[in-house]
Amino acid sequence: MSTKQKRFFLTEEEIPTQWYNIQADMVNKPLPPINPKTKEPLKPEDLFPIFAEELSRQELDQEHAWIDIPEEVRDMYKYYRSTPLVRAYGLEEALDTPAHIYFKNESVSPVGSHKLNSALAQAYYCKKQGVTNITTETGAGQWGAALSYAAKVFGLDAAVYQVKISYNQKPYRRSIMQTYGAQVTPSPSMSTRAGKDILTKDPNNQGSLGTAISEAIELAVSTPNCKYTLGSVLSHVTLHQSIIGLEAEKQMEKAGEYPDVVIGCFGGGSNFGGISFPFMRHNILEGKKTRFIAAEPASCPKLTRGVFQYDFGDVAGYTPLLPMYTLGHNFMPANIHAGGLRYHGAGVIVSQLLKDKLMEAVDIKQSESFKAGMLFAQAEGIIPAPESSHAIAATIREALKCKETGEEKVILFNLSGHGLIDMAAYDQFLSGSLQDFEVTDEDVAKNLSELEQII
Amino acid sequence: MSTKQKRFFLTEEEIPTQWYNIQADMVNKPLPPINPKTKEPLKPEDLFPIFAEELSRQELDQEHAWIDIPEEVRDMYKYYRSTPLVRAYGLEEALDTPAHIYFKNESVSPVGSHKLNSALAQAYYCKKQGVTNITTETGAGQWGAALSYAAKVFGLDAAVYQVKISYNQKPYRRSIMQTYGAQVTPSPSMSTRAGKDILTKDPNNQGSLGTAISEAIELAVSTPNCKYTLGSVLSHVTLHQSIIGLEAEKQMEKAGEYPDVVIGCFGGGSNFGGISFPFMRHNILEGKKTRFIAAEPASCPKLTRGVFQYDFGDVAGYTPLLPMYTLGHNFMPANIHAGGLRYHGAGVIVSQLLKDKLMEAVDIKQSESFKAGMLFAQAEGIIPAPESSHAIAATIREALKCKETGEEKVILFNLSGHGLIDMAAYDQFLSGSLQDFEVTDEDVAKNLSELEQII
Repeated sequence: MSTKQKRFFLTEEEIPTQWYNIQADMVNKPLPPINPKTKEPLKPEDLFPIFAEELSRQELDQEHAWIDIPEEVRDMYKYYRSTPLVRAYGLEEALDTPAHIYFKNESVSPVGSHKLNSALAQAYYCKKQGVTNITTETGAGQWGAALSYAAKVFGLDAAVYQVKISYNQKPYRRSIMQTYGAQVTPSPSMSTRAGKDILTKDPNNQGSLGTAISEAIELAVSTPNCKYTLGSVLSHVTLHQSIIGLEAEKQMEKAGEYPDVVIGCFGGGSNFGGISFPFMRHNILEGKKTRFIAAEPASCPKLTRGVFQYDFGDVAGYTPLLPMYTLGHNFMPANIHAGGLRYHGAGVIVSQLLKDKLMEAVDIKQSESFKAGMLFAQAEGIIPAPESSHAIAATIREALKCKETGEEKVILFNLSGHGLIDMAAYDQFLSGSLQDFEVTDEDVAKNLSELEQII
Repeated sequence: MSTKQKRFFLTEEEIPTQWYNIQADMVNKPLPPINPKTKEPLKPEDLFPIFAEELSRQELDQEHAWIDIPEEVRDMYKYYRSTPLVRAYGLEEALDTPAHIYFKNESVSPVGSHKLNSALAQAYYCKKQGVTNITTETGAGQWGAALSYAAKVFGLDAAVYQVKISYNQKPYRRSIMQTYGAQVTPSPSMSTRAGKDILTKDPNNQGSLGTAISEAIELAVSTPNCKYTLGSVLSHVTLHQSIIGLEAEKQMEKAGEYPDVVIGCFGGGSNFGGISFPFMRHNILEGKKTRFIAAEPASCPKLTRGVFQYDFGDVAGYTPLLPMYTLGHNFMPANIHAGGLRYHGAGVIVSQLLKDKLMEAVDIKQSESFKAGMLFAQAEGIIPAPESSHAIAATIREALKCKETGEEKVILFNLSGHGLIDMAAYDQFLSGSLQDFEVTDEDVAKNLSELEQII
């Protein structure tokens, strides 16, 4: 191994200066989001009450493949980017596979995950527009931590609704947000109408991302000079995350290879899209044959077992109607440790791409994800986030196939974050008390039938 | 800020291939360690029962200024080195200081701290000699985590004695060690004579580093094919940590600056020596005038208020007698969150350098360290380990002096690790319940008078 290079970096000059918007290159564009009141396709102006104007325009932009990264955001990227592209020699050896495994290590961002890439952009556009306060929701807390820090960077006040079960089970993430200066409220809360409605019916409700989104939006639209921000699902978030794949592309070039398979874990789609889309453009434009695999939890299987239809992005129905693979906006995912993947729907871009078979999806049980995470920790030294362990599990499946066939495939996955705040989950795995959760076909069908055909 | 470079790296080819041994260049060499039985100066062979032979030789080497880093260790360094040298523009702005502040970010190592630099070396030399099992002690758990991973890398079994109060208060660090496959025992334990003696007298004893060292040494010398390893204090550990300063030296060159002040937090001395000694050699050999400041906790003030004399490194008296600044080996430090700094003595090299006024020491109260850590987290995005926050606090003091005088001094400090496993401590600070601990002159005098003049 001694003469082989292990990690690949870019100089600050080589860091990409534009994000990539795959919408512009897609043959079948995503269907338009719909204004639920007018039933008309959404215009950017319809989003202005919720999001910063520039972000609203980015959300619906199907024209421009390349969007300049503002200088202020690029300056902040320099604090942790480029992130390393790592050749996983240790994992290859542990699996005894001929595959070449690479991972993009986003866990080295100061907040511990890729989420900062979009948090900085969103906070910047809000600041530029004169906004003073921003709100958001968070599950496990990776996004909340990123947004709290980004708000501090640009001098904004941040209010974060954290899913109550995570707020109580992962107190360290709450502390991290507070250390960055954010105000953190467990959701559902009595501070919004959406929260009150739920708590009145069910005082012990433990919350969900869908509920926390409703609360954060409600606070944003009812507070002067305040905008809402979101950590995944939406197209502008995926746009910002394209920095991951754009860097990886240049770094793979330095390694002298090109991926046959690209893998990301899947919650709403921004991490998966971030690593995938810059490579997928070569499939679309130049006929490359790279495979793209989204790894979702078996307990929240919207890509593998959901349906493609218009649905709300949140529980209360405050968001536009989005054309997406969904389990229904009332689906309540089991309490897996990968809190960032507990979401009922997929972003509109990914949904269209999956429908058009430009990508694949696999589902991973919690126990398989932790087994993969443990193996990775011992082989590569980095303890992965439970979310990222889904991508590792899918990578291991592919690498073991290569072992059977003898193929030297090049596999690239995104290590979206580290798991240092999730050690209680590893404890459960080590002690043998980690649970798997089954979703029966009846559960899925029942939940979807409850979802009235909105359009 | 936009045109200024923020982070400086080395290519894999530029990473130093030798460690620096300052003992060879010191005008006044450290006094020799003494064999407590024979009262004779220690020879490497005296250490063979405890340490790997090569490490024993390195410990007493006062001849060779440069020691080759074995290829197997350099291969592993590539997984996370070079670590970034970062210009702390955010902190400079927050302090409104003309000083140029740089930090070496060792927190990006896979285990979260600089400790891995020596853990890999120690595990490698043990493996090379045919050792199959290694033992160690750990306080807060940074060293234990590093050694557990290093043992896994080189196929060794690791047994770690963790100070009981940390074992119970910081369960995540224990989980991290177990995730890497180590066996972790709270100390004092009933598994050794040293532990039994203490528990018999005091069943509720919460442990100390000095006690855990005694237990780990006892297990090593009574187990076949087993050696003991240590995370700081000893000269060979400081040798391995010189990689930090050697890299920083090349990186500062890339930044076009040279430090006027170098700062490290101080527990046993390896982190401080690691960042300092490569620069200090230019003071010794070329008459440069850089200042070196060790930042120790006010509650464990061996450098600022201890005495220079021969003392044991552990509570039970298993170690050689070491010529060092000490508070007495029975000193029981207050339960500050910076567990890695709770040690009664200083390494022999640092002790001699302090005696010869080649460096300085300051003491930092716990509250000042957390205030500094919070400011750094908000300014630079990285939540520092409570240990590292002592270095940050000392840096802030120097930077504020520059603000008064208008001097553009270049200050370099070592960010030895991140604080993500220490968020409960930040919670205490945020809620206003963090305590300071006073050590009275009477406490110090009483403890030292109890220490019989051994030589």
